[in-house]
Amino acid sequence: MLGAIEAGGTKFVCAVGDAKGTIQERIQIPTTVPEETMPRVVEFFKKYDVEAIGIGSFGPIDVNQESPTYGSITSTPKQGWRDYPFVQTLKELFGVPIGFNTDVNAAALGEASLGAAKGLDSCLYITVGTGIGAGAFVQGKLLQGLSHPEMGHILVRRHPDDKYEGKCPYHHDCLEGLAAGPAIEARWGEKGMHLVNRPEVWDMEGFYLAQALMHYILILSPKRIILGGGVMHQPQVFTAIYHYLPKLIHGYVTLPELSSYIVGPGLGDDAGVVGALMLANIANT
Amino acid sequence: MLGAIEAGGTKFVCAVGDAKGTIQERIQIPTTVPEETMPRVVEFFKKYDVEAIGIGSFGPIDVNQESPTYGSITSTPKQGWRDYPFVQTLKELFGVPIGFNTDVNAAALGEASLGAAKGLDSCLYITVGTGIGAGAFVQGKLLQGLSHPEMGHILVRRHPDDKYEGKCPYHHDCLEGLAAGPAIEARWGEKGMHLVNRPEVWDMEGFYLAQALMHYILILSPKRIILGGGVMHQPQVFTAIYHYLPKLIHGYVTLPELSSYIVGPGLGDDAGVVGALMLANIANT
Repeated sequence: MLGAIEAGGTKFVCAVGDAKGTIQERIQIPTTVPEETMPRVVEFFKKYDVEAIGIGSFGPIDVNQESPTYGSITSTPKQGWRDYPFVQTLKELFGVPIGFNTDVNAAALGEASLGAAKGLDSCLYITVGTGIGAGAFVQGKLLQGLSHPEMGHILVRRHPDDKYEGKCPYHHDCLEGLAAGPAIEARWGEKGMHLVNRPEVWDMEGFYLAQALMHYILILSPKRIILGGGVMHQPQVFTAIYHYLPKLIHGYVTLPELSSYIVGPGLGDDAGVVGALMLANIANT
Repeated sequence: MLGAIEAGGTKFVCAVGDAKGTIQERIQIPTTVPEETMPRVVEFFKKYDVEAIGIGSFGPIDVNQESPTYGSITSTPKQGWRDYPFVQTLKELFGVPIGFNTDVNAAALGEASLGAAKGLDSCLYITVGTGIGAGAFVQGKLLQGLSHPEMGHILVRRHPDDKYEGKCPYHHDCLEGLAAGPAIEARWGEKGMHLVNRPEVWDMEGFYLAQALMHYILILSPKRIILGGGVMHQPQVFTAIYHYLPKLIHGYVTLPELSSYIVGPGLGDDAGVVGALMLANIANT
């Protein structure tokens, strides 16, 4: 039996299951401070005989196995979690192998293993929600270099009608600062769920995301692109991306039919937790 | 003995050497049309008993081994080379394994094997010359997905003082359209070599390249970045990049000391041809 933790900024999903991605039991735990959240995580896994645990965590995290702080959350502004030694804590308590990567890299692995990119050795998983992040599965492995990717903060060109200054505390009007859920709410004065009948909202969203996808395609050349997260529950955003992306790329690279190349998650909201099971499986072998 | 071809848009460099990257003999052949250029390539290699040949080619090229047109140059505007079956031609003539990748991927491999990224499993090689292209070595392999990267055509935000419309036939003012050698010449009215004493030229160049590097770093997280090509012979461009890049990233990701992270090629102008030797070696094993 394998354990999985999808450690998000608002909630943790803990699950047990198998290497085929079948989830046997799961719980949700609110993400407050480690002293509250982690004992509940531990209590859940103590009930099972897990051989390994996979963690897909909010970040930034230290994924460099040669680093002295490997397995920690690093510079998060989230109270209590800065420098939290996630892997070390679980390793000491359970004495089993621990897989560790970003939440979005885990989701990319889940989708490549069992979801919308099943059978491919390459995909990109992008979440557009309270933030924007992306994980990449490249030539059969999760992308890692100096660290994990931080694709949500690339710069985009502004829509000519957009006067909103941007919400990113680091870069103001980077992609996340202009196109994540909180930016939509701040720009239009209401949460996205109340803006369903405002086509200009989703057209602008697609305008920004298409630029990001152009960059990801030119730099990584993924075999499939999966877009998840709350904002992508608006199908109009996909439509706008299919409209803008070919105009931007302008025939320079040849892409598959966009409606099968840029898709929603095959695992729905389970991409992350299934990916964490896969991380456990890799750590166990 | 291994053969290497660095197939550039203006000249081919053919060489023979060994798996350690030692070049025994080399020639240069002008790139005209295949009927003229290729017989001279063949004549050169016929003199040696090569076990394999590696090609680092101008692009775009088909690097997908499952494609029926694998090993061809594809949609180049270069007369005579469109759909040229590079690998197939040499395979039929020499009957040896042929390695095939882009010129910039070959250079990345060369630099990772024996140059400025020696010992690292990850680097990015960017050439800034008559065009802008980049190759990536990721987790010990040359990056490949749907196809090879085409990083030179990403979009950048314009410098407030730049009125030049851009030179890219596909995207006008993408990175290549604003920052490759021909764009410098068109904007300032003279070739770069005559603009050495115009600091504003190189400051603007660094402004654009720093944006590109920010994107490459956030998306690929390379362990070292190597900048080659004619434009990078101006050390002022490195200075401008070191100035602009930290302002753009604004502390969001932690980078090594920039002067050792973003460097010139360790192999000088030989990165491509040495990389092609390494491609031959990989094809031969």
